[in-house]
Amino acid sequence: MSVITIERKILEKNDEIARSNRALLEKLGVFALNLVSSPGSGKTSLLERTLEQLRGRLRMAVIEGDVHTDLDAQRVARYGVPVVQIVTHGGCHLEAKLVQDALSRLPIEKTQALFIENVGNLICPANYDLGEAMKVVVISTTEGEDKPLKYPAMFRNAHALVINKADLLPYLSLRIEDLRRNALQVNPGLVGFETSCVTGSGIEEWCEWLYEQASTKPSRSGSA
Amino acid sequence: MSVITIERKILEKNDEIARSNRALLEKLGVFALNLVSSPGSGKTSLLERTLEQLRGRLRMAVIEGDVHTDLDAQRVARYGVPVVQIVTHGGCHLEAKLVQDALSRLPIEKTQALFIENVGNLICPANYDLGEAMKVVVISTTEGEDKPLKYPAMFRNAHALVINKADLLPYLSLRIEDLRRNALQVNPGLVGFETSCVTGSGIEEWCEWLYEQASTKPSRSGSA
Repeated sequence: MSVITIERKILEKNDEIARSNRALLEKLGVFALNLVSSPGSGKTSLLERTLEQLRGRLRMAVIEGDVHTDLDAQRVARYGVPVVQIVTHGGCHLEAKLVQDALSRLPIEKTQALFIENVGNLICPANYDLGEAMKVVVISTTEGEDKPLKYPAMFRNAHALVINKADLLPYLSLRIEDLRRNALQVNPGLVGFETSCVTGSGIEEWCEWLYEQASTKPSRSGSA
Repeated sequence: MSVITIERKILEKNDEIARSNRALLEKLGVFALNLVSSPGSGKTSLLERTLEQLRGRLRMAVIEGDVHTDLDAQRVARYGVPVVQIVTHGGCHLEAKLVQDALSRLPIEKTQALFIENVGNLICPANYDLGEAMKVVVISTTEGEDKPLKYPAMFRNAHALVINKADLLPYLSLRIEDLRRNALQVNPGLVGFETSCVTGSGIEEWCEWLYEQASTKPSRSGSA
């Protein structure tokens, strides 16, 4: 019982800081996205294409979350955006407190869109609200049709789904309509995109949607 | 501090049950593998090809671990092996106690090789010994070269690395020698395989190695 109590307390404390992050971001008019996925789905590549596409149109910043290394922050920094790397040292998800600390090290009052790239993990980050406006789940075409059914919490808590690595579809037996159907079965409200960071297909549509969200900035709930 | 204490206690309790699982498996001469990976790396497909290849040569059994659904157990059951599905209902890794319960539901005294397919997660299962003889980490060619550096615990604690989906190599920019080098940097003792469950390449080599391990059955340490 004590484990459950402690876990509940951790989540309560996390949610409290997440609310404070959200209030700050909304006050400053920052649209914050929490990008979640399995390792290797192409979150960082998608982010690179996004920074490239929206450069000059939106003032953007990035928080990179990784278990080890600052490889992703190095990749993202090449696009000339402010970036903070959070290394969790074994921790399997980002928490609101880590994001709060990172926010204090970013020029957040000058930022219109903040991308938080979570640790590559399709399970644990689902339960941790960071104060984002929206969660976006990225899945690679190589991961199979069944993932929304096997990892439902992540898909249920997300606002949008990006099916990435669309360029590999000709070489896979994936039935993409089954993947879509499984995702919508878990969360009928999911906004869907199909992208390839290799060919660039779908990137413009994804970025236009993002741009519209960041420009509108209604108050949103970050956790479902 | 209390969280750390509780976590240590959970791990100590887990290790105790893992030791008991290991003692039972070694006494009965069962070679147990703990298959770990990201979601969608192809663990279940690799297991299917393995069951197919070694059918008639080894008496095999399977424990499937998933956050939700028994889809994988259904797939594996088609190969005529005893299988138990563990559904963790949100839990991000298998634990020794769950495996202990599953063992009691398998004809374990008649089994020579036991495959435990862990939950798809490249982080949390690294810390939980299940009582296996060896951990095998499976990574898909689509996941990128950097994963051993970003998720080192899993690669450090594994005995073997299977690089799966080799059939996709012609369509990827992956430098497989970099992936291998990164893995060996984290764990120089890793035994390496390259497989494709589509073309069947590398499956025989992987299965012959497995067969040899299961036939030799020396006492091994399951956690690094």
